[in-house]
Amino acid sequence: MTPLGDGRYAATIHPDWDIFGAANGGYVLAIAGRAMADAAGRPPVTVTGHYLAPTTEGDVTVDTHVVRSGRRFATVNATVNQNGRDVLAVLGTFGDRDEPGFSYIDGHPPELPPFDDPVFADSPDVAAERPNIFNNIETRMEPHLSGFRVGIKSGEALLTGWLQLRHEEPIDAIALLLCADAFPPPIFNLDAPVAWVPTVELTVHVRGVPAPGPLRCRFATRFISDGLLEEDGEIWDTADRLVCQSRQLALLPRG
Amino acid sequence: MTPLGDGRYAATIHPDWDIFGAANGGYVLAIAGRAMADAAGRPPVTVTGHYLAPTTEGDVTVDTHVVRSGRRFATVNATVNQNGRDVLAVLGTFGDRDEPGFSYIDGHPPELPPFDDPVFADSPDVAAERPNIFNNIETRMEPHLSGFRVGIKSGEALLTGWLQLRHEEPIDAIALLLCADAFPPPIFNLDAPVAWVPTVELTVHVRGVPAPGPLRCRFATRFISDGLLEEDGEIWDTADRLVCQSRQLALLPRG
Repeated sequence: MTPLGDGRYAATIHPDWDIFGAANGGYVLAIAGRAMADAAGRPPVTVTGHYLAPTTEGDVTVDTHVVRSGRRFATVNATVNQNGRDVLAVLGTFGDRDEPGFSYIDGHPPELPPFDDPVFADSPDVAAERPNIFNNIETRMEPHLSGFRVGIKSGEALLTGWLQLRHEEPIDAIALLLCADAFPPPIFNLDAPVAWVPTVELTVHVRGVPAPGPLRCRFATRFISDGLLEEDGEIWDTADRLVCQSRQLALLPRG
Repeated sequence: MTPLGDGRYAATIHPDWDIFGAANGGYVLAIAGRAMADAAGRPPVTVTGHYLAPTTEGDVTVDTHVVRSGRRFATVNATVNQNGRDVLAVLGTFGDRDEPGFSYIDGHPPELPPFDDPVFADSPDVAAERPNIFNNIETRMEPHLSGFRVGIKSGEALLTGWLQLRHEEPIDAIALLLCADAFPPPIFNLDAPVAWVPTVELTVHVRGVPAPGPLRCRFATRFISDGLLEEDGEIWDTADRLVCQSRQLALLPRG
């Protein structure tokens, strides 16, 4: 990412983040988030992206505008532009973590086999069909919920699993924007007539910077109606802390 | 609301929407949403507001900018300005409902006594302490969860109840933005050292236009950590349809 002055940044969409022809939505949000965090001078707390058009391999510019820079938080909006058209509009608030204080945690990380369990080994035919993005993000989905990849659907719109970046690259607050959209849609576990689920809007709350090690993720959809669905995500670190909550509104195209 | 040209609108913050000195956040979001819907030429689907400063009684201007206007959706950003400073930054996508198609509903409206049940009658001392906003929005909270108003806390960060506008004014897609922030914070049911819970960001998904009649609402917080918490809302209509999902990120000020 290269600052060009006046809040504008140049960045490149790498082909390695492709999902069947379009760049992953979380990856594009993370590119915008990195520029916005630079403009804000602090890491993301809550970031919302509205997807306007598919993003593909190649150059983009990110135009940022600091709406307000306060003592604790800075609020920034941005647009990502590719080939002369806006592909993503973003609004986010950035700030540093507060001290731990009153705590209330009504939830827990998903229960998964250990990260190195041989049960996660994919059969080669499944691995061969994986989109490019899985060369950069390694996901290890709970086996009882991942049979949809070979046509065995659980009937519940839920996916859980491990996530780490390849080469165990550390996951910072900005990389969490990417992680929040890194799993397949959990509705692939339903008998819905659906091949793709385009995101309209994705909101990510960064609740903490992850401790080192792979993350545990839970993605679920509870309501599909009138061609729209929400997808809620929770991401937990190796210290059993919730580090990210996400929600997206997506389209269920008519089959 | 008065259009002033070039995407600018004039509006007034009425004192009747006050909560102990500041206008209700959902009310201000609905004012922005109404201007944005006018600019977009269609009703809201997903709207996110970032709160920059308290809004008080008096005039505001809303500056809207249509980022993209497509066949199905239009994406608009806006800022609300009062007395020369921005108080709210908003990003939203607007569009018309799709036809019903594949449906999956993993949830149900909260169970409540009937809207007209005498159990909802408040004792006069409680009613006297109500903020102004409750002259415009009538809420009838599940009695077992609303004892916090007299110091009896349930221990679970959950509130459910009925909601209708005074004089049974119909609730359209824009009014849902207001409803999504109309209940007290559910963490008032915890032994947390907290008197107010300022919203950092509020995202509302409009999932349908409500059928006539009072709405049933469920607001809950599952995670409080490092001075931040989320609050999730579900709003159901008299036809048992989910018409709104909301999530806000709020601050837990140190007590």
